[in-house]
Amino acid sequence: MAPTAKTPPPRIQIQEVWPIVDCGRYPTKRTVGDTVEVWANVFRDGHDVLAASIRYRPARERRWRDTPMRPLGNDRWAGSFEVDRPGRWQYTIEAWVDRKATWVGEIGRKVQAGQEELSGELSEGAVLFGVENLTIEEALELEGGDRSDVTSLPKPLELDVDRERALFGSWYELFPRSWGGFEGVAEILPQLAELGFDVVYLPPIHPIGTTNRKGRNNALRAKKGDPGSPWAIGSELGGHDAIDPALGTIDDFDRLVERGREVGVEIALDFAIQCSPDHPWLKEHPEWFHRRPDGTLKFAENPPKRYQDIYNVNFDCEDWRDLWDALRDVVQHWVDHGVRAFRVDNPHTKPVAFWEWLIADIRSRTPEAIFLSEAFTRPAMMTTLAKVGFAQSYTYFTWKNTKWELFELMGQILGWAECYRPNFFANTPDILTEYLARGGPPAFEARLVLAATLSPTYGIYSGFEHFENVPVRETSEEYLDSEKYEVKERRLDGPLLPLVQRLNLIRRENPALQRLTNLTFLETESDALVAYAKVERGSAVIVCVNLDPFSWQEGVAIVPASLGLPPAYGARDLLRDEVYGWRIGRNYVALPPGGSHVLRVEA
Amino acid sequence: MAPTAKTPPPRIQIQEVWPIVDCGRYPTKRTVGDTVEVWANVFRDGHDVLAASIRYRPARERRWRDTPMRPLGNDRWAGSFEVDRPGRWQYTIEAWVDRKATWVGEIGRKVQAGQEELSGELSEGAVLFGVENLTIEEALELEGGDRSDVTSLPKPLELDVDRERALFGSWYELFPRSWGGFEGVAEILPQLAELGFDVVYLPPIHPIGTTNRKGRNNALRAKKGDPGSPWAIGSELGGHDAIDPALGTIDDFDRLVERGREVGVEIALDFAIQCSPDHPWLKEHPEWFHRRPDGTLKFAENPPKRYQDIYNVNFDCEDWRDLWDALRDVVQHWVDHGVRAFRVDNPHTKPVAFWEWLIADIRSRTPEAIFLSEAFTRPAMMTTLAKVGFAQSYTYFTWKNTKWELFELMGQILGWAECYRPNFFANTPDILTEYLARGGPPAFEARLVLAATLSPTYGIYSGFEHFENVPVRETSEEYLDSEKYEVKERRLDGPLLPLVQRLNLIRRENPALQRLTNLTFLETESDALVAYAKVERGSAVIVCVNLDPFSWQEGVAIVPASLGLPPAYGARDLLRDEVYGWRIGRNYVALPPGGSHVLRVEA
Repeated sequence: MAPTAKTPPPRIQIQEVWPIVDCGRYPTKRTVGDTVEVWANVFRDGHDVLAASIRYRPARERRWRDTPMRPLGNDRWAGSFEVDRPGRWQYTIEAWVDRKATWVGEIGRKVQAGQEELSGELSEGAVLFGVENLTIEEALELEGGDRSDVTSLPKPLELDVDRERALFGSWYELFPRSWGGFEGVAEILPQLAELGFDVVYLPPIHPIGTTNRKGRNNALRAKKGDPGSPWAIGSELGGHDAIDPALGTIDDFDRLVERGREVGVEIALDFAIQCSPDHPWLKEHPEWFHRRPDGTLKFAENPPKRYQDIYNVNFDCEDWRDLWDALRDVVQHWVDHGVRAFRVDNPHTKPVAFWEWLIADIRSRTPEAIFLSEAFTRPAMMTTLAKVGFAQSYTYFTWKNTKWELFELMGQILGWAECYRPNFFANTPDILTEYLARGGPPAFEARLVLAATLSPTYGIYSGFEHFENVPVRETSEEYLDSEKYEVKERRLDGPLLPLVQRLNLIRRENPALQRLTNLTFLETESDALVAYAKVERGSAVIVCVNLDPFSWQEGVAIVPASLGLPPAYGARDLLRDEVYGWRIGRNYVALPPGGSHVLRVEA
Repeated sequence: MAPTAKTPPPRIQIQEVWPIVDCGRYPTKRTVGDTVEVWANVFRDGHDVLAASIRYRPARERRWRDTPMRPLGNDRWAGSFEVDRPGRWQYTIEAWVDRKATWVGEIGRKVQAGQEELSGELSEGAVLFGVENLTIEEALELEGGDRSDVTSLPKPLELDVDRERALFGSWYELFPRSWGGFEGVAEILPQLAELGFDVVYLPPIHPIGTTNRKGRNNALRAKKGDPGSPWAIGSELGGHDAIDPALGTIDDFDRLVERGREVGVEIALDFAIQCSPDHPWLKEHPEWFHRRPDGTLKFAENPPKRYQDIYNVNFDCEDWRDLWDALRDVVQHWVDHGVRAFRVDNPHTKPVAFWEWLIADIRSRTPEAIFLSEAFTRPAMMTTLAKVGFAQSYTYFTWKNTKWELFELMGQILGWAECYRPNFFANTPDILTEYLARGGPPAFEARLVLAATLSPTYGIYSGFEHFENVPVRETSEEYLDSEKYEVKERRLDGPLLPLVQRLNLIRRENPALQRLTNLTFLETESDALVAYAKVERGSAVIVCVNLDPFSWQEGVAIVPASLGLPPAYGARDLLRDEVYGWRIGRNYVALPPGGSHVLRVEA
């Protein structure tokens, strides 16, 4: 038996819609101000004239907005709209038959072919247009514009729109205890702003446990006066919503956030879901933690590695709903204190469904909130964390130091660009790479330029600008005398800061460096030289970096005609303020160890 | 508030499943005997040991079958199963945590790292394995094998499995009225079988209308004795379920089908949904047809083209359900008379939802039924017809005559291979290409070899083997004195038949020619020479064709090492029974106008 619906199924097909992530299971990511380009196949059996539009809205609004799609040929249609505020958006595609346009087109072709007996056709047109005794001459003047067989996607697709800082920003990581606590940090904020930083990220600022506290250089037992790792969160003084008294008070913190707002530097906090043995939750909610059949609590481990100073919560415990709510309340607490950016510690060891819920919950009230995923794991998990709501992610960048590795890395990241944004930290408190340890200052310079120009968001952890590169032991990526376990005396006087400042300024002045997907690698005829162009509406930058930290290297940068640059142009080196004559084709390049060109194309 | 379900959401992710068509909206196509390879990303937060399996079944069976997946690294898993009967199949992926294997792995790594205080761990293991007072030595002997956190795809994916003839077969199209009706066709079936044909396709066999009947060469008025076009279906003698008395009776037809079964040649019918003005349905069901406001019936047209001898049904009429049922009953009628293959006329001008319903309905009772789509239209519609159930489709092959066109065509078809199978007719009653009209016999030879070796299914329309190539007028693709409008006297004595027979035999003996996706084009350093290899489990064939129908051409066929053929081998030309020495790399080729090598690789 034929289907039992009253009307036949729709005849218009809408297929191969783009953008879409995992068949619509997850939202596509976009940034405020983006023009969202939408494509789809729209077609129907037979020869009727079709039309289509994109309907879109912020998810909270009832009213759909509407923008027409245009046919590109072969049933492919395209249109676009702008997203002007952060948060969840929806869009769908609507297509319909224009029966009037169909009729006018057909009668036109018949008249052109010299057919004269058209009375049946005219009787149709008279009904369609509501015109009595329609003549051929009148018919040829009529126009289409009605909608029948209106068809939509089965359900709207979603976009997650972030504020601009999710895509473009310069981050500086510092341990506030090494800078005189919140007051000391507040004092250097104007200088950090002048250096061009947008975000200052603080490792956990909460009371640190004393039981099993780690000593200097990760010693199993702390000595008297050792401050412990800030990631061993919680003591009798409080947990995730409390402040380590060594840093200041909550009022000091509020003043720090406020000072940042004044000078244009945002404070980002760390969200690390783990508890020292002294965290209040262990007494208040013992049911939230893993306990062995013999009654012992399980500390964190990744066998055979053991982390005796922290306990992980048990996301599968019976009381999981209260646990989830409590964790959300922690984030909400800091949102209420003005924090809009969170770096999340090891999110890949917690359930992705938890992140999807938590981030959506926070962003439903505060769509400006952005979450940075500290996930160094396999691609499936890294991209899934992006899909479920993380605005940014750490990457493998620190370990990609050869030309081929960088090429492969960027290819992978560009392939994920519909949902994933990278944050290229050049170092972290956990990652001192062999390349930096061996290469010294030229290696630091090369990596800084790469981070700041390959990815719109990048960062450095303080010490980088001082070329700190002594590992705790050969082949280790841990720093000797790591700041994770002791207090340093830090000052903003590193020798690399002038280059940092120059790059941050260049990034702000050149829109091409504020986008991810506008990257094209250039052939250089040298394994040591990497070159790439970024082109964005009237802004074009070409970067060449000598990856060799020990020797001068020479080669060419071959600019393909497909980039759309002029046949010949002035290439102004923004690091040296010199202008070279460049052209489509081969351009000679010679660079000192770790040296770079950052060239603005000037027509 | 956290989600309100009793248990937390699943932690295992199953993503990027393959094969899948349009996010699971349509089934993937496979052929009986195929090994279905399945891939997916399977992963979970944390470090637990995972396992996964494919569950699959014919859709009618309750019981799921099970086959393990194996991890390929980076969270990618793979497995496979065989489909051993036609019809709809389902498959899903199931993944789980093996908690016992996780525990055994962890305690092993701890022991290896020299950790000795493991009493808490052993208390866990004792509970997990139900062993009292577990010792370390005993623990290291334990094995995994339990399932917790079992997770599946949200719903099963579907496969549409066809019998082998849907993928591989040689078709011959003939107008039975030119061969002495059903009796005459029955007489030549043994000879067609000997020529290696698998399917004989007959244009419509129903009574032909007399009103507005077309005359010879598509004249608007038939002369006395003109038989009319078989596609003007229906007269006072009956409609789509009746037989044109000029061809025989229903008993004759049954005998024809039976004779085909005896000699191994299958009869395929045409399903053309259109009615001559004399079709019984116009009187019995006037509501099924388009009527203008002035009361006139609308004949078929594609303005400014008019088809005054046929009326199209109105799929949107109020009584559409009865119309759909009646059309299905027509197909069922011929299924009941033993027909298992239908060539469908112009399916792209009927609703795709109708085809999806009709084909599924017929195949639910007769999964051996296959439908060939005669759609020459844009790619979106051609592939959608494949998705909704057509086992095969006509293609643009006839119009692709240069090397680059063939390369592009095959790339497109291979990109559709998960749901679309081509049938390469070298000509049809509607398509006499300029290449054949100008190129003469060498052009016919080249096109025959291309059709029979590029696609596992190919066909010719009778006349091809006689090199018939006179168009009704210059630039027309219609034949002069087209068989569509008159009766011919046909005999199986065309000069091209020995090559046809040879090719059909070669196709049967070489499994590499029975598959679509095993194709690799070879570089030839000549625009006139096209070369390609097809490799399939122990069978490898290399084909070289001179596309120039006027001159000898020479070049090379460059065999890449990636094909996996021996460094040097004998290449036996199956058309000439000569053996050449071929190797990886450059192989000299010289061919006469339209000539070919069909080379079997002999180790």
